[in-house]
Amino acid sequence: MGDKFLFANSEKEDADVCIFGMPFDSTTSFKPGTRFGPNAIRDASYNLEFYSMALERNIGDIKIFDAGNIGFHTKPQDAISEISKRTNDLLKNDKFIVGLGGEHTVSYGIAHAMKEIYKDIAVIHFDAHADLRTEYDSEKFSHACVMNLIGSEIGFENIYQFGIRSGEEEELKFAEKTNFYPLHKYDTTQILEILDDLNISKRTYLTIDIDVLDPAFAPGVGTPEPGGITSNDMFKILNSLKKFDVVGFDVVEVNPMIDVSGITAMAAAKIVREGILNFI
Amino acid sequence: MGDKFLFANSEKEDADVCIFGMPFDSTTSFKPGTRFGPNAIRDASYNLEFYSMALERNIGDIKIFDAGNIGFHTKPQDAISEISKRTNDLLKNDKFIVGLGGEHTVSYGIAHAMKEIYKDIAVIHFDAHADLRTEYDSEKFSHACVMNLIGSEIGFENIYQFGIRSGEEEELKFAEKTNFYPLHKYDTTQILEILDDLNISKRTYLTIDIDVLDPAFAPGVGTPEPGGITSNDMFKILNSLKKFDVVGFDVVEVNPMIDVSGITAMAAAKIVREGILNFI
Amino acid sequence: MGDKFLFANSEKEDADVCIFGMPFDSTTSFKPGTRFGPNAIRDASYNLEFYSMALERNIGDIKIFDAGNIGFHTKPQDAISEISKRTNDLLKNDKFIVGLGGEHTVSYGIAHAMKEIYKDIAVIHFDAHADLRTEYDSEKFSHACVMNLIGSEIGFENIYQFGIRSGEEEELKFAEKTNFYPLHKYDTTQILEILDDLNISKRTYLTIDIDVLDPAFAPGVGTPEPGGITSNDMFKILNSLKKFDVVGFDVVEVNPMIDVSGITAMAAAKIVREGILNFI
Amino acid sequence: MGDKFLFANSEKEDADVCIFGMPFDSTTSFKPGTRFGPNAIRDASYNLEFYSMALERNIGDIKIFDAGNIGFHTKPQDAISEISKRTNDLLKNDKFIVGLGGEHTVSYGIAHAMKEIYKDIAVIHFDAHADLRTEYDSEKFSHACVMNLIGSEIGFENIYQFGIRSGEEEELKFAEKTNFYPLHKYDTTQILEILDDLNISKRTYLTIDIDVLDPAFAPGVGTPEPGGITSNDMFKILNSLKKFDVVGFDVVEVNPMIDVSGITAMAAAKIVREGILNFI
Amino acid sequence: MGDKFLFANSEKEDADVCIFGMPFDSTTSFKPGTRFGPNAIRDASYNLEFYSMALERNIGDIKIFDAGNIGFHTKPQDAISEISKRTNDLLKNDKFIVGLGGEHTVSYGIAHAMKEIYKDIAVIHFDAHADLRTEYDSEKFSHACVMNLIGSEIGFENIYQFGIRSGEEEELKFAEKTNFYPLHKYDTTQILEILDDLNISKRTYLTIDIDVLDPAFAPGVGTPEPGGITSNDMFKILNSLKKFDVVGFDVVEVNPMIDVSGITAMAAAKIVREGILNFI
Amino acid sequence: MGDKFLFANSEKEDADVCIFGMPFDSTTSFKPGTRFGPNAIRDASYNLEFYSMALERNIGDIKIFDAGNIGFHTKPQDAISEISKRTNDLLKNDKFIVGLGGEHTVSYGIAHAMKEIYKDIAVIHFDAHADLRTEYDSEKFSHACVMNLIGSEIGFENIYQFGIRSGEEEELKFAEKTNFYPLHKYDTTQILEILDDLNISKRTYLTIDIDVLDPAFAPGVGTPEPGGITSNDMFKILNSLKKFDVVGFDVVEVNPMIDVSGITAMAAAKIVREGILNFI
Repeated sequence: MGDKFLFANSEKEDADVCIFGMPFDSTTSFKPGTRFGPNAIRDASYNLEFYSMALERNIGDIKIFDAGNIGFHTKPQDAISEISKRTNDLLKNDKFIVGLGGEHTVSYGIAHAMKEIYKDIAVIHFDAHADLRTEYDSEKFSHACVMNLIGSEIGFENIYQFGIRSGEEEELKFAEKTNFYPLHKYDTTQILEILDDLNISKRTYLTIDIDVLDPAFAPGVGTPEPGGITSNDMFKILNSLKKFDVVGFDVVEVNPMIDVSGITAMAAAKIVREGILNFI
Repeated sequence: MGDKFLFANSEKEDADVCIFGMPFDSTTSFKPGTRFGPNAIRDASYNLEFYSMALERNIGDIKIFDAGNIGFHTKPQDAISEISKRTNDLLKNDKFIVGLGGEHTVSYGIAHAMKEIYKDIAVIHFDAHADLRTEYDSEKFSHACVMNLIGSEIGFENIYQFGIRSGEEEELKFAEKTNFYPLHKYDTTQILEILDDLNISKRTYLTIDIDVLDPAFAPGVGTPEPGGITSNDMFKILNSLKKFDVVGFDVVEVNPMIDVSGITAMAAAKIVREGILNFI
Repeated sequence: MGDKFLFANSEKEDADVCIFGMPFDSTTSFKPGTRFGPNAIRDASYNLEFYSMALERNIGDIKIFDAGNIGFHTKPQDAISEISKRTNDLLKNDKFIVGLGGEHTVSYGIAHAMKEIYKDIAVIHFDAHADLRTEYDSEKFSHACVMNLIGSEIGFENIYQFGIRSGEEEELKFAEKTNFYPLHKYDTTQILEILDDLNISKRTYLTIDIDVLDPAFAPGVGTPEPGGITSNDMFKILNSLKKFDVVGFDVVEVNPMIDVSGITAMAAAKIVREGILNFI
Repeated sequence: MGDKFLFANSEKEDADVCIFGMPFDSTTSFKPGTRFGPNAIRDASYNLEFYSMALERNIGDIKIFDAGNIGFHTKPQDAISEISKRTNDLLKNDKFIVGLGGEHTVSYGIAHAMKEIYKDIAVIHFDAHADLRTEYDSEKFSHACVMNLIGSEIGFENIYQFGIRSGEEEELKFAEKTNFYPLHKYDTTQILEILDDLNISKRTYLTIDIDVLDPAFAPGVGTPEPGGITSNDMFKILNSLKKFDVVGFDVVEVNPMIDVSGITAMAAAKIVREGILNFI
Repeated sequence: MGDKFLFANSEKEDADVCIFGMPFDSTTSFKPGTRFGPNAIRDASYNLEFYSMALERNIGDIKIFDAGNIGFHTKPQDAISEISKRTNDLLKNDKFIVGLGGEHTVSYGIAHAMKEIYKDIAVIHFDAHADLRTEYDSEKFSHACVMNLIGSEIGFENIYQFGIRSGEEEELKFAEKTNFYPLHKYDTTQILEILDDLNISKRTYLTIDIDVLDPAFAPGVGTPEPGGITSNDMFKILNSLKKFDVVGFDVVEVNPMIDVSGITAMAAAKIVREGILNFI
Repeated sequence: MGDKFLFANSEKEDADVCIFGMPFDSTTSFKPGTRFGPNAIRDASYNLEFYSMALERNIGDIKIFDAGNIGFHTKPQDAISEISKRTNDLLKNDKFIVGLGGEHTVSYGIAHAMKEIYKDIAVIHFDAHADLRTEYDSEKFSHACVMNLIGSEIGFENIYQFGIRSGEEEELKFAEKTNFYPLHKYDTTQILEILDDLNISKRTYLTIDIDVLDPAFAPGVGTPEPGGITSNDMFKILNSLKKFDVVGFDVVEVNPMIDVSGITAMAAAKIVREGILNFI
């Protein structure tokens, strides 16, 4: 019931972690509304404890700044450009980035800035959709193309995709170039095994499309795809990602306009808390 | 519970009236979702009688074709272009046009085709918003600019605006060039008087943004503006417009994603019935 | 938050007024769900004061019994039969009847019993729809036929219909036989004048289809018809009906499945309170 | 956002598969509204890809015709009769049938026609409820009796029931005559084993009551029964049914009036896609 | 889509107007949830123009600071005490106060501080309910008692009540001591006349319970009372209050948990804009 | 669609089981509304069969009385006191208690009476939250403190807590004194093993906060905590509790205001049926 993320206890200068919202959803192909996602996740955060029982850590011990939302845009380039600029500035100030979507397109803005600053990065991607199209509705800056945009920039071999259960034939050609673990072949148990075995030496960005969860656990999303993982699976996975050099993450595609009981925003808020506690 | 507008009883060739949907909402500035408007209005039509008690006419006596929806686009130019093309084709076949939105941007597509075919037209505009901006979020093909686009093409002096209760200072400069009757100065009683006195010799297109109704009567809209007219006012106004040479009309901005009881789509469906019965 | 109508303060024997629910909705032609109407009106009653400021009377001074709901049926004859039987029993015990719908079909059950007991009755009818069909979907015991059923039994000349704004041509032939005051010719001001002038010497039953209100005031109804009266109009009308020998009334067609904010049930609950205070 | 099922790419003559809707829900015992199911499933289909990643097939390669909905009826016999007639016609034209409900009663209409045409059929049934009553509310053509009606016609020994977790004692006597695998004894793992071992030599019809899914995965149903299977379970099961000679299937009991985020219709739409891709 | 009221363009030091939220709702007698009101009004503000067409003024020209929300409390005394303290501080800094509720109890906190600082004040009160009880559920710090609390402190003769349409007999005794204009005797036309004639020489605080609007215009409230005024009435009234020395105002009882389309919060946000433009 | 719990077939004197509702939610820290829980669970019960297929028992064979709801209070002490008094009376009449919440605070009222009557009891607790705080918002009679209140009275060593996944560091000190099996260490499989091994010789009260279920299965709760158990897990656990001397149980925290499809109330209603059938 406040106006900042509950855990945001610091000013920009002091903070180790910076949270910001990206209220953009113009290329959404099914149900729009993720522009309201960042504020819904903030609102949901007021239901959570500072202490994580599973991780035995208190997020109150970490210095977090909530930078508010970037301006609202309807053109994807405008949104991406502002996101990149803001991210760039924060990375120069050594902040750990937490981005709140907004449709998935926004992740390209962050990844682009990460590439600029860190030169060499890996991206771990959880999603129901491959998001590897070259264009969608004659637009390449689209939620359906975001991993293609990122792959083109950081190298597809640096992308690790999990939970995917939807994609067109054409984009699956790109999936051959990424580290692609679709859900019908790799369920949560196997994902955890793969992550245990995996070594990524580079700085790593994590992008979580909340629709990687089954619609039962995340009904409030732009493009729900039945047959996903549980919230609890996601928390276990987050814990297993601790070993990587994660320098930031985002949670995108929360759509409050159809998240009637608010459980999608709540899952996202808890992912933010558990993510920060695992990675900082 | 069918898949066409209830009153659509004819094939294209035979029809005098052609209904089509325009599921476009990418430039929506507040709550998106009007892309689902056309189908919601169709669904609502199944609740209505064919007979209008007030007009003492039966819509079953009029030949109506439902052409379905134009394809879904996220870029405004693409949507406008397809709408213009389809309208152009229908006008060449002497159809009376009934367009279902979608956000207001789509009306430009129809008006553009009308101008092409009829050369000289007037546009009567009911809306809560002036929609006279030159651009919005650096985009001129925007719902907030649609009357400016139309005015630039058909001449601002051919535009008649009613019900307006929201607008920025800058766009009100353009309002000086149109026939501008804002709601705080001209309520329904006065609108009816003005319409009684008004002579328009040209073919006339009517565009109704459903948010001209008060949010009590039309809660399911992209940009609700408290302080509007009632459904009943609108039906009376439609009846008073009968004397003009109306060659088509649209009802736009119905947003089913927040029209929880469906009363906005129902008002729109009844406006379609009453409109056709008044103008054909 | 109790399990009876808030104002139900008496046992059956002592009561002057008996409330009962009729959870039937099988012939609903558009949005079903009025079976949940009676309990929703009960729940809403907990928001109201016992005292009516406008009528300067306290409903706590009147002995009221809530008899609960009749059993749930899917066949109209079964529902009507049980309603008639229960009403018959209550009338024999000199109770003033308050029925909660359910779809409008149920009113026939009550009117039938009234005719049995009182021989000669009049019915005042507020509704958006004429409900004068001879059959609907090859069923005569239908919400769309209820006034035809009642008229056939008590004489169409004993029916007074107000607020009507929807009907098919065929059923309007029957409207010639009733006292028919459609809304497009007789608005609230005129209804009040007519009622002032009207003399009905018979015992009178009042049936209120909540969709006589505009959908803005009663969005939660099976067949919403834009262009109705306000809640406040209805309260004034109820007060003007005080002069008649009203022996019971019903409020029907509240549909909680689409009455998301509960304002339709609230209007119905207040109509129940104001009705009782006017007529007892 | 179109007016046909997304995958419907053919006209009737050319099609191998024919989809049609059955908007009937008059005998629903709890929350009505499945009449709106077929259109909701159509709307949901616009969110899905043509390509199934798990099945590695593209539904665009299959010729599908969407025949729209049968007329709306409130009497069960009328609905059943029209469904049977339409199915009969389609079967004579060698179409693979895909029916969209509506309440479960409609499946009897299809099964009846199948028996007429094919003489000898088996029915595989997924549901939370046994649906084996002889009558419900003194009506035998009821959703609660549909498997009894079908069993009486095709022989109870030709019925295979899975996922059942609710039923009255009396109807369980009929369960002794069918191949009955209730969920508390046979969970998804065991269902898959049973299906692996099962041989059915006859043409087989598959009827899926979407409430076989847990309400978490399918909240929008007429009679939700906690304790069901997941969407993912259902997709695996569909794949295991591939070996049978499935000649058609239905998905019934989707209730959009309470399917607020639309995830139930989405699960149904994906079941339609996966079903067609498995069986054609 | 930002995290402050849209019009909040200044820091505390520079601001002439200070907005703050009071998320308290523990004594709510019917539907709780107004604790989420302040943030919902902020969110709604992003739909409004800076310019008021009716008032021909731009709110961007006024220096406004959004101080966020006071802490959440479940005990009324704690909330009142924090509100008083904050108001006191703001008044000492010569700020014009705009309070966002929360249930009506919170207004006592502000009025109490106003009395402390200004010694002599009047309160103009718009509400469906008299709120003059001495206690409710054995609690005097209750939304149902707020005008009694205020009257006891500033003198009942300094209270002006409009729009009231609900109250118990006992509290109407206190109404004899205030300037009491209940809605069934004084409708909007008459309210405007009274206000025109009225002289109040004291500094005046205005408290608006949003349920003074009819539930059609404000469905999202804790205790909806059918039969109220329209949004447009309220805007006219606000304009007529311009002549008084209004030193602050509040808008309370917006309940987002049942304000499904958000029109109640929207009405409140526009009341905030129009209020500030009228009074500053 | 009745006004009592469906299974309530007896009067108080004859009953072995007594159900009552506790509509209290004033200390709720996030989303209020559980005051409407008891009636929602009653409404949901009309969807269930009397017969439990898993337990092979018919609840119609058990004598159950529904005592309605205790009065509505906003002060926790008042609610607790009335609950204790009513429970005390019922226990003296040898009733098995089934309480319906309301927020969790109410369980203290029941447990307090149990301690009074039975002197020595154990409490088994299923919940997402530890509820072991000493106070919350300076109130000890709070939902967040209920197990601390109960532990202080019956001895912390007599409390068995399962499903917990949220708690502050301070309250976990009290968890060291209870039998504490948090969900991240003890999942359903392990809970069932522990219960198998567990011996409790005392009379045992069972308190189930419905948020022990994952929000996917119980979205309508005051404080949803992602990562919980399934409905089916809960039914299995209930069956395993059969061996204890359970003398009553409650199901609390059902919040109908956000339980849009009603599946939370449905899960609760089925827990009531299965609980009674296991324990009586």
